[in-house]
Amino acid sequence: MHTCIATVSLSGTLTEKLAAAARAGFGGVEIFENDLLACPLAPEEIRARCADLGLSIDLYQPMRDIEGVPDEVFAGNLRRARHKFQLMNRLGADTVLVCSSVSPHAVDDDARAAGQLAQLAELAEEFGIRVAYEALAWGRHVNTYRHAWRIVEAAGHPALGVCLDSFHILSRASAPEDLEGIADIPGEKIFFLQLADAPLLAMDVLRWSRHYRCFPGQGGFDVTGLVRHVLATGYRGPLSLEVFNDVFRQADAGPTAVDAHRSLLLLKEAAGTAELPPPVVPTGVAFAELLTPDAEPVTALLTALGFTRAARHRGKPVDLWQRGEARILVNTAATARRDGPRLAAIGLESPDPAAAARRAEALLAPALPRRRAPGDAPLDAVAAPDGTELFFCATGDPELPDWRADFTGLPVTPAPSATRSEATRSEATRIEATRIEATRIEATRSEGTRIEATRIDHLAVTQPWHHFDEATLFHRSVLGLTAQASVDLADPYGLMRSRAVSNADGSVRIALGVGAAPADDTAHAAHIALATDDVVAAARAFRAAGGRLLPVPANYHDDLAARYDLADDELETYRDLGILYDRDAGGAFRHCYTETVGRVFFELVQRDPGYRGYGAANAPVRLAAQHAGRLLP
Amino acid sequence: MHTCIATVSLSGTLTEKLAAAARAGFGGVEIFENDLLACPLAPEEIRARCADLGLSIDLYQPMRDIEGVPDEVFAGNLRRARHKFQLMNRLGADTVLVCSSVSPHAVDDDARAAGQLAQLAELAEEFGIRVAYEALAWGRHVNTYRHAWRIVEAAGHPALGVCLDSFHILSRASAPEDLEGIADIPGEKIFFLQLADAPLLAMDVLRWSRHYRCFPGQGGFDVTGLVRHVLATGYRGPLSLEVFNDVFRQADAGPTAVDAHRSLLLLKEAAGTAELPPPVVPTGVAFAELLTPDAEPVTALLTALGFTRAARHRGKPVDLWQRGEARILVNTAATARRDGPRLAAIGLESPDPAAAARRAEALLAPALPRRRAPGDAPLDAVAAPDGTELFFCATGDPELPDWRADFTGLPVTPAPSATRSEATRSEATRIEATRIEATRIEATRSEGTRIEATRIDHLAVTQPWHHFDEATLFHRSVLGLTAQASVDLADPYGLMRSRAVSNADGSVRIALGVGAAPADDTAHAAHIALATDDVVAAARAFRAAGGRLLPVPANYHDDLAARYDLADDELETYRDLGILYDRDAGGAFRHCYTETVGRVFFELVQRDPGYRGYGAANAPVRLAAQHAGRLLP
Repeated sequence: MHTCIATVSLSGTLTEKLAAAARAGFGGVEIFENDLLACPLAPEEIRARCADLGLSIDLYQPMRDIEGVPDEVFAGNLRRARHKFQLMNRLGADTVLVCSSVSPHAVDDDARAAGQLAQLAELAEEFGIRVAYEALAWGRHVNTYRHAWRIVEAAGHPALGVCLDSFHILSRASAPEDLEGIADIPGEKIFFLQLADAPLLAMDVLRWSRHYRCFPGQGGFDVTGLVRHVLATGYRGPLSLEVFNDVFRQADAGPTAVDAHRSLLLLKEAAGTAELPPPVVPTGVAFAELLTPDAEPVTALLTALGFTRAARHRGKPVDLWQRGEARILVNTAATARRDGPRLAAIGLESPDPAAAARRAEALLAPALPRRRAPGDAPLDAVAAPDGTELFFCATGDPELPDWRADFTGLPVTPAPSATRSEATRSEATRIEATRIEATRIEATRSEGTRIEATRIDHLAVTQPWHHFDEATLFHRSVLGLTAQASVDLADPYGLMRSRAVSNADGSVRIALGVGAAPADDTAHAAHIALATDDVVAAARAFRAAGGRLLPVPANYHDDLAARYDLADDELETYRDLGILYDRDAGGAFRHCYTETVGRVFFELVQRDPGYRGYGAANAPVRLAAQHAGRLLP
Repeated sequence: MHTCIATVSLSGTLTEKLAAAARAGFGGVEIFENDLLACPLAPEEIRARCADLGLSIDLYQPMRDIEGVPDEVFAGNLRRARHKFQLMNRLGADTVLVCSSVSPHAVDDDARAAGQLAQLAELAEEFGIRVAYEALAWGRHVNTYRHAWRIVEAAGHPALGVCLDSFHILSRASAPEDLEGIADIPGEKIFFLQLADAPLLAMDVLRWSRHYRCFPGQGGFDVTGLVRHVLATGYRGPLSLEVFNDVFRQADAGPTAVDAHRSLLLLKEAAGTAELPPPVVPTGVAFAELLTPDAEPVTALLTALGFTRAARHRGKPVDLWQRGEARILVNTAATARRDGPRLAAIGLESPDPAAAARRAEALLAPALPRRRAPGDAPLDAVAAPDGTELFFCATGDPELPDWRADFTGLPVTPAPSATRSEATRSEATRIEATRIEATRIEATRSEGTRIEATRIDHLAVTQPWHHFDEATLFHRSVLGLTAQASVDLADPYGLMRSRAVSNADGSVRIALGVGAAPADDTAHAAHIALATDDVVAAARAFRAAGGRLLPVPANYHDDLAARYDLADDELETYRDLGILYDRDAGGAFRHCYTETVGRVFFELVQRDPGYRGYGAANAPVRLAAQHAGRLLP
């Protein structure tokens, strides 16, 4: 089905909006009157621009308060309509939206409304235009789709039909039966279908609609159910997004249009009108990749955390560091020095990497070009909306190529100068060497550090402010992960939000975070949480190896004493090491943080199997300590 | 009365909040538990810091879900309370807030609640602490102040009283009678009074409270009425602000604390517990002052607008430009070049400049130090919250010194090189010269330009994002101006807001604007709107003199033709000159815009006497044209 977006849903000038909509793959646009009025292009030029971009102009929205008004007011409305129909002919738009009156002059008289709409349709027909009548949820007398249809039916004009809008319908629908009236409307009398979702807020409906709409799948409405009802009537017109949202108005139109089109593709999949490659849920975290202009601060931290440099990429300046099942790639490829180390990529264990990438690409995630040397393993990778690279790969699966095949083994504790020579190792021995290496790593214990079954518990990634809700939708629908509720985290300088996505067994957990304001995109570092069986032992080992932990104020631990019945020595240990504590119905969560290097830090985590959270209750204390910038000696 | 602010109302770390509260003149603070937990200072150190700053700690907020719970839960609560009372002794805080339970474990049993609160108060008394019990608007069983008081009364413990909170009371109050129950509470049983205002939103009360509270006078609640009721009981405890607001969480604590204290001072004035110098409403705009590193672009614009350089300041690089009653000062004192010209000051005609300044200073507007030469007229000036300098002055009032006395006359159209010599003119002839000058200006017509009764119609000033509501309160309460409703203006890159303040006869009109996001502080230029009797003539004269007008898309004027019955030639003239048109019940408004220089532009305005607005409906078109940056030839 034809996909369409209203220009009001995107930021910028009309021509910027058109370009963004076309680039994101939409087939058409609704042009909002204010966008046209502010555009220096003549209607014919706008029409040509749209044609160039492959966009149809599916709807024009110029008229309000048309019907159900006194005769003399209606005469003026018809005069205005004639102007607009001329304009629409110049634009090449053949459907006009008429919203139900909100005017204080409107009278509660269906016959009058029907008669006037028929007159309007008669005029429209002269211009080859169809009139789509829509009930606004706050319309003065007409505010339900059933009522709008009764009037359209009474008017009985071939150029008059209804426009259905998911917001106006679902914001008033309290039960599934409220959608059943859609079946009474013949599909050919539904001239247009506008789609928007919204969070379920108890709020006056006008404000809710004008500022808080979101793309389907981001809010709480059953937009899919509504689309199914509409399709059952035989409707085959456009699926068009019309989203008024204060945040999208500020965001770059390009990414917003991509977010928008992805949500529409997902909606089509859910409604059964489009087939996409099915989701392939990741089964673990293969690696996290840090990009850093200088390996030193990262490797010092990894060494203190008990990681060992296990292998080096054959053709790129990338080292594989490993501890137990946790693998960190340290990539020193050229990057801007001032950025410092940052989390650049996540390797997700995938039972079918190629299929996972196909779904992501079908859902508009850009596939990443891999400059591969001959013989390198093929790696399926796409960019997440925030730019993080997602690699779909397999570790040690006999059925699939192993991403580690591109890495050559190294002595477990090599002298830094010894590493270069490894790159000359012959191709023939490479894969075998890696296998041996892997075995060796599992068996080795570096001096004084007990190697436990460490793995990556979760990754926390900061999202661009304007695209936070869409990031959740991406991870949910593209990767097949499940989202928890969004939580507010009180940073000293503003409320952050965080929302976790995970797979069923918790072997993939990603916490998506966002700052308090648009400018905060870079205000908070990403982090990698390492699961340990014993956070106290892990923290002590880290400190003994020269690592520096984030200190936690004594007041926090005094409060722990008031809240929980912890043994005195346990509490003293936590105090000493800066360990935080949380508990839910499923168990306890103990965690502490390393220093931050560049834009990344590590967390050591001891999670009881039943605990579902991420220590959000402790976030204000952690964030304040990070702002203060002190570290434990 | 003692003024106090809850630390949750301010952004930053606890120590930053304390410093800001003290600097703004508060006498005390409520310490919010999360702020304490995240603070590296020990409670004794916090106590000492507060003492140093002259702040008392009037309340501590650590406990929730205390009462109306099963015995075994309550035993744990008492244990926790003992910890907290010990902490409060270390802090030197003697009142603890207990909010009514929201716990699902809470039972609907007043006797149980009263008994448990009495036990808690008994324990508190051992520590010299009083318990203030507050009904949350969303409390599970106790959610009105009357109910909280019934329970406190039933408990009958001397260390137990109520805390009243204006948000919790007024968010549920639908009629003035709802406040009458306050009179039933003896003043000495009201242990604390928390104050917050809020915009009148139809929204679920928890969300409304947690994110949208604002300072008294900024919202829609009758906080003053509530305070009067409470004072009538004999209550003489602190007036304490407790404002949860997402915006304030991000703002600099210093200005927020000043905004907060100002609103509390105004509340005290309104409630009759404090006397402030009364407002002196300005009666006109004496001048607008542009600060610019280079006079050239500004003077070219002023010249094209028909202004003449009329005088120069005796001791400063400031020129007075005049056309009719509109006066612009061009100040070339050292400023950062990259800023370009900006609106730095507004001269307000005042019937009593000294009294106007006294009120502003009493309401925490910083008085501006004037480096005056001996003999300069005394000028009363303060800084508005956005940094704009406000001068209270008089023009041509025989009873008051004339601010123009510091300026010496110039030839009306001087050669630029001739101006310096004027500075040597003797003191004795200065004032007389100015008088002569003023007369001369009124009488002069520069070549080809008809001088009309031009004056400043309005000034539009961009406010810092985090302090927009407080800017309105400042202009309303400090200057005695009246505020219109806030309107949204759709900029292509986000929703701006604008709110106009004016005096009764419209001779002072200031439009306060704010960008769509915190980073937009500098995104929009200020402007000076000049009133003309004939905007067409003024625009033509401007263009004839080499001025460049902002072009308006043809689509806009096509729409005007559809909306209004304008004569064809009138419309063509508007099209040619980029004149916009608006109409309300009181009349029409015609306006056009000049190019922008630096951070300022001019508007030419023809306002029918009854028209009340500022052409907000046309703002999207104007803003888009300004972003496009094109100009009429």
